[in-house]
Amino acid sequence: MKIYDWYNGPYPARVRIALAEKGLLPRVEFVSVNLWKGEHKQPAFLALNYSGTLPVLQLDDGTLIAECTAITQYLDVLDGTPTLSGRTPVEQGLIHMMTKRAEIELMDAVSVYFHHATPGLGPEVELYQNAEWGLRMRDKAVRGMRYFDGILKSQPYVAGDEFSMADIAVLGGMIFAALVDLPVPAECEALLAWHAKVNERASVQAWRAMVAQPR
Amino acid sequence: MKIYDWYNGPYPARVRIALAEKGLLPRVEFVSVNLWKGEHKQPAFLALNYSGTLPVLQLDDGTLIAECTAITQYLDVLDGTPTLSGRTPVEQGLIHMMTKRAEIELMDAVSVYFHHATPGLGPEVELYQNAEWGLRMRDKAVRGMRYFDGILKSQPYVAGDEFSMADIAVLGGMIFAALVDLPVPAECEALLAWHAKVNERASVQAWRAMVAQPR
Repeated sequence: MKIYDWYNGPYPARVRIALAEKGLLPRVEFVSVNLWKGEHKQPAFLALNYSGTLPVLQLDDGTLIAECTAITQYLDVLDGTPTLSGRTPVEQGLIHMMTKRAEIELMDAVSVYFHHATPGLGPEVELYQNAEWGLRMRDKAVRGMRYFDGILKSQPYVAGDEFSMADIAVLGGMIFAALVDLPVPAECEALLAWHAKVNERASVQAWRAMVAQPR
Repeated sequence: MKIYDWYNGPYPARVRIALAEKGLLPRVEFVSVNLWKGEHKQPAFLALNYSGTLPVLQLDDGTLIAECTAITQYLDVLDGTPTLSGRTPVEQGLIHMMTKRAEIELMDAVSVYFHHATPGLGPEVELYQNAEWGLRMRDKAVRGMRYFDGILKSQPYVAGDEFSMADIAVLGGMIFAALVDLPVPAECEALLAWHAKVNERASVQAWRAMVAQPR
């Protein structure tokens, strides 16, 4: 299978970490789509993903799956042992809820901040910016960090007792926040402790190694 | 189980239609959260759903599941026969992708238009509006309609050959668009034909009956 992505993009990180969790990295060919040149907004890529976002998974038969959660769901159930998206109905419901919440309240908010209230990918790519909206989303993201800190005060992982794709989504938000120099409030001790813990996972270390030495 | 929602809300419609598809309506107690009074933004409701959005599912043991896709995922796998969220890995991936795309490109865009570039829920509830962003999202939603029209030209349902939660998500977008008087371009014949077809489903008729006679 192929993954169209950019080596250090925060959304791509979510799928690369999921691939590492599932032991699937050796089966993937990565195809670079240069965010800084706006290749993800050009017709060739838009034909792969109407929404113009990375990453996209392409199966050997040509089937295209975009959206981090959808790709992760596919990868996770492939071996019949869903470790990231939940086994029971309740687990699946809670993990999908918290994954979406991580997007709405943290990761997507950081993304809007980046693209609208900072230079983003540069003037050639950021053809429209709404700085007021971007700054509002920055503040939302910081509130999101405080929310997840509260969650992690009472449970070890974002969706409960076990690591899941919801943790990967919050981690994606933290990766994006670091890229845009949006610090986690120092009093978010539970979030920071969780971050240190998940950074130790082999999958996250594999992702960091790929960022350091792009492939 | 309980569903916290508002009888004719477009996001609540997605879960009510999913409940009807699964034959689960008789097992649900609906609890009204009055959108027009902003009850979904008040502390009592925010304790149920940090994001302050409807609907929320509460299980008999108190477990709370928010977000339409997460609730639908839970409801769909409950009986071991997933008819809405996909059976195979590829089906699951494609359905989750198209459901998310229906949100990003249509339903959420209509929602932002409603809350930011129209009176929305009124001045007591809409405490911040960004009209420029709202109008931009209106235009995005209309482009989204054209995108789904293109998809439905070549396949009977949004995610392929069978009705799924991706169809329910696009339908939610159409329901919201109708509420805010955002018409589907007349040339979107495949989208309009699909809309007429899904409106015939028993689940959608059950939803319309509940809207006509709130419960």
